[in-house]
Formats: sequence, C-alpha cells, structure tokens
Amino acid sequence: MVSDSILKHLRELSHEIRDLDVGHEIPNVDVSELTPLSFYRDYVAKNKPVIIAGALESWPALEHWTSEYLAQRMGPSQITAAVTPDGRADAVKRMPDGQEVFALPAYQSMPFAAFLQALRMPQKDEITYAQSQNNSMSEEFPALMDDISELEWANEAFGGRPEATNFWIGGNESVTSFHKDHYENLYAVVSGVKVFFLLPPSDAYRMSMKRYPLAQYKRDASCRLKLQLKEPPQEVPWSPVDLEACRQRMSADESAKDALFWDDELPRPLAAHVGPGEVLYLPSLWYHYVRQRCYPFGEPVLAVNFWYDMPFDCKAAYAMMCEKMAGDSEVAPAS
Amino acid sequence: MVSDSILKHLRELSHEIRDLDVGHEIPNVDVSELTPLSFYRDYVAKNKPVIIAGALESWPALEHWTSEYLAQRMGPSQITAAVTPDGRADAVKRMPDGQEVFALPAYQSMPFAAFLQALRMPQKDEITYAQSQNNSMSEEFPALMDDISELEWANEAFGGRPEATNFWIGGNESVTSFHKDHYENLYAVVSGVKVFFLLPPSDAYRMSMKRYPLAQYKRDASCRLKLQLKEPPQEVPWSPVDLEACRQRMSADESAKDALFWDDELPRPLAAHVGPGEVLYLPSLWYHYVRQRCYPFGEPVLAVNFWYDMPFDCKAAYAMMCEKMAGDSEVAPAS
Repeated sequence: MVSDSILKHLRELSHEIRDLDVGHEIPNVDVSELTPLSFYRDYVAKNKPVIIAGALESWPALEHWTSEYLAQRMGPSQITAAVTPDGRADAVKRMPDGQEVFALPAYQSMPFAAFLQALRMPQKDEITYAQSQNNSMSEEFPALMDDISELEWANEAFGGRPEATNFWIGGNESVTSFHKDHYENLYAVVSGVKVFFLLPPSDAYRMSMKRYPLAQYKRDASCRLKLQLKEPPQEVPWSPVDLEACRQRMSADESAKDALFWDDELPRPLAAHVGPGEVLYLPSLWYHYVRQRCYPFGEPVLAVNFWYDMPFDCKAAYAMMCEKMAGDSEVAPAS
Repeated sequence: MVSDSILKHLRELSHEIRDLDVGHEIPNVDVSELTPLSFYRDYVAKNKPVIIAGALESWPALEHWTSEYLAQRMGPSQITAAVTPDGRADAVKRMPDGQEVFALPAYQSMPFAAFLQALRMPQKDEITYAQSQNNSMSEEFPALMDDISELEWANEAFGGRPEATNFWIGGNESVTSFHKDHYENLYAVVSGVKVFFLLPPSDAYRMSMKRYPLAQYKRDASCRLKLQLKEPPQEVPWSPVDLEACRQRMSADESAKDALFWDDELPRPLAAHVGPGEVLYLPSLWYHYVRQRCYPFGEPVLAVNFWYDMPFDCKAAYAMMCEKMAGDSEVAPAS
C-alpha cells in the first residue's frame, strides 16, 4: 500500500492539477478558434483535454456513413471483430472459479456485412466491436479512406503525421475499461456518441493497478465463448476499477476495492460526451474509460482516431514518478 | 528531513528527466531553425532550456553598446544600482555574529556615468550591479529602447508581449545565487558572457531551502556597507547552496550542508555559456545560479531579459508537489 505521507502529496496533487488548470469540465471550442500553435500551447503542452467542434466539415463520412453505405463500399471485405459475451473486452474479469484475470476478447475475422448484422441484432452473449488498433483504417477499411482526411492543423501542431489511424465500430453494450495510451490522441466521432471518463496521469494512485493472469475468450465445443487462461501463463498490469460497479456500488467488496477511486473527497473523472462531427483531444497518459450510445437507435457508433507520438518530456517523467509512488507493491499479483 | 521513500522517488526523477529529455547539455540552435510553434513545442512545452543564436541580428545594441555609447545616450540620467561588498546580493550570508540571513543589497540611485565608473574601477568592498527587475529597460533606460526590440517569434509563441523587460549591467564579481522565477525567461546577452548553472524544478529537494531572517546592506557612519537585520523582522525562504563553495568544497561544514546538491550520484547542474548575440530560453521554475565574465576586459556585461507569463498547468502542479515533497520541515527557521 501507498504510505500515508506519499498519499497525502498525491491527493493534494489531484486537487492542484484541477485547481490550477484542468478544472472539472472539459472545454468545448470551435476549430475556427484554434491555430496549430494555440492548440499546442493551450492544450497539448498542458496535457489538457478539449472537445473541438467543426473539425470534420470536409469529411464526406459525416454525410455518407450509414450502415447501408458502409456495407456497399466494403463489399465482401473481411474485418477483425472483437467478440465478448458482455461487451467488456480488455478488462479485469472473473473466471468461473472466481479467479480474477485480464480478459482479451475473441478475435474473429468475418465479412463486414456479417459484422454489421451482428452489431444490429446481437446474438445472446455475443457482443461484437471493431476496435483493432493496428492502423485499422488503412489495414482493414481502405474502401472508406476517401471519406475522411487527416486533420492538417493537428499534423502541423504535432510536427508530423499520425502514427496510426484506427476505425471504431460498436454498439451500446461495448465498454472500454480504464487504461492509458502512450500516444497523443485525436478521437473523431462520425455517428453516435462516445462518452469518455477521464483522469489525469497524476491520478495513477487511484487506479489500484495490479498484475492479472492473461486470459482470452475462446469458443468451446458448442461454440460458446469461454474464458481460458493463456498458456504459457503471462501477467498483465491493469486497473480493476469498474466505473459502472463503482457508480452502482454493487457490493461492499467492490467499493472497498476501488476506495481511492471512489473517494468522495477526490475529484470525479471528467466526462466528455463527444457527438457526430466532434473531436476529443485525449492527452497522452490520461486514464480513460469509454462507453458509447447509438444514435439513431440501431445505427452503429462510428469513430476514427489518430494517434500521434507523445513527447517523452518532464510531464512523462512526472507521470512515471506518480505511477511509481502509487506503489510497486500494488502492481503485485492480485490475491 | 525528507523521508527515505520520498527521497528515492525524487532521486529517480532527477535522473529520469535528464534521461528522457533534458540531457546533460543545453542544446544550441539558430533562430532560423525555429518557428514560434516549434520553439513552443520543442522547448517551452517541455520546460527545456535552449540557447538560441542569431535572434538579435536586428538589434543596433549589438553593434553600438559600448560604455562610451551608453554614457553618451544616458546623459545625466540616474539609475538604481545594487551595491554589496562582494557582488553577492540576494543571497544567504553570515552576520558578524555568525547568524545566517538573507541579504538584500543596498539600493543606491546614482548617475549612470558614476555607475559605469564604479563598475570599471570598483572601490574596495563596493561591487555595483544594475539588476532592477521592475521592467527596468523602459523605467530606467528609455534612451536605449530604440537599440533593442522585442522578439516577435517569442511573442507569437507565448501568445502575448513580455510582462517585463529588464536591463542587466554588471562586472566579473557579481553573482546571482540559486533561485527560481515564476516566469518564462528569454535572456539576451549583448556584451560579455553570462554563465548560468541550471537545475530543473523537480530538483527542489537538492536546494536545502530554509527560512532566513531578512537583512539588508546599509551604510554605517563611515559610509561602509554593513548588514543590518530588517525591522520589524521578516523571513525569506531561500537556498543556501553556494555553487562556488560547493565546487571548492571550502569546508566540511559547507559540503555537508549542501550534501544533496553536491551528491556525486545526482546529475550536475546544466551549464549555459551565453555570449553576445545569443539568447537563453530559461524555462519557468528552473533554479538558476548566474555568473558573468566581462569581455573585452573592463567593458561591462550587458544583457536584456524578457519575462513572459508562465503557464500554471500540470507541470507547475508537479513542480509544486516536488517542492512540498522536499519537506516543509526544511523551510523551517535556519538553526
């Protein structure tokens, strides 16, 4: 556990960062108010999230992307879907025997039309999500590339093109558990609403990070998804904080486990509701938990994100210290 | 004293910040390699010092500023000089009874010509330094304003004009003790060489900060400078670290006092030798210790600095935490 004196400093820092700069609400700006320099100075340099409107006006995607259009453009192409029974991939789960593990989804290659159908009419205990982060836009969806374009002001600000551009297609049930990325992220929503809950890197001590055995969903003989431990065994450091469980305070056990996350005297996560045509600047190393809402109902939530190299500077070094201060002992095998 | 576990984190951070980004040498760039955006992104956003050449080429000052020229332009104008017996103003000193105090210089208004004369031919135990930081360029030296100009690329980068522009005129004996400023600083040298020794804000724990009674040099009946305690008593938090004393390891006492500063396993201060026509970007909150060398001999060291508002963002919050971690107990009355 974190020592009391270290915890006192970290708690003060949680407040200080909000009080000095980040506040308790994510600002909204129009892209016309930004220059590459002012975007960098006022947000990136400060590692401060912002929602940017009007940045996708040149994207045909905004007008064209319906299920029907996508199906027609993609034709017989195969894509990779992440499949879980409950929409919670890459998250801490319990095995039937109660053991906590870090669960990968089943990865399944399927025709795009079948994927859309599965999204619209999910089978029982089969939630699909296109969430590949291997530059999936050009790898899996080349037929849609002409409908989007890179954000030139962002390329200029970051001083280079994105490292990866990923396409995300999901439904109401898919949730992404708290984690952080070593990238600067511009997350553009084309259809539906993405809801991000964000905590700054300095709040690492609230994530209750532990090491979990790695498991993955596999289909059993009757084709049902079952969690199986990976062989040979591997461990993954991850946060068990489940925003939904915390919110509902599902059990005394759960709320105790996430006590620091849910501490009433610590600031709540910042919430970003990002709708069609909006772009979230999600700063590097911020912890994020993501839900989504289809709108209109039955249409998938469509989003494209751009990952840019992050600066490994004093901010990164400070964030790393905060993680270490959160206690190496916490990144120990979960008991 | 700082607890061992906190000290371990701070020591690791000292190394991490150098290893990730700042390195052990200050980079030199030509102003032609910078844009306002790249300057902000590659240095300001990273809180990383850099020496910039070629930025003063439009300054008549570079060509014209000699003692003779300055004396002629300033005519009978009075300026404020800081006067001390040894060139160490705003530093921790010992009173004759051995008590450590924070010593202000005597401030003395004098004709500019007399000031120059005092610089060139110092009287015994009388070191003068023009170091007013009240926007002194326009307050005290309006006749010289046409010889310099603001750095437009910097104004664009910072998104506004400087808060203050100060003129510095000194000789070999004047030294500025370790301290930090709550400003972004562009420090332009016109004549002579300024030598800065720099430590990042995260090295606060190496500064051995304590609170010292405030004292000031005053002239006694025989007109000699004597340190006098201020009435009513006040205290000033300051660092007793004396780079010269450390380097010379003047006594076992002294080196023990500054043990963390001088610890062989911690990184040395970064040294910046800033010569005529060069500009040092000195990032906000960096601790700096400054010496100077006249060149040619007998000519004063002339410099102009621009202070810009600093961003109070996560970097500032992290730096504040590092200061607090260095131990409130250390900012206790010096024993």
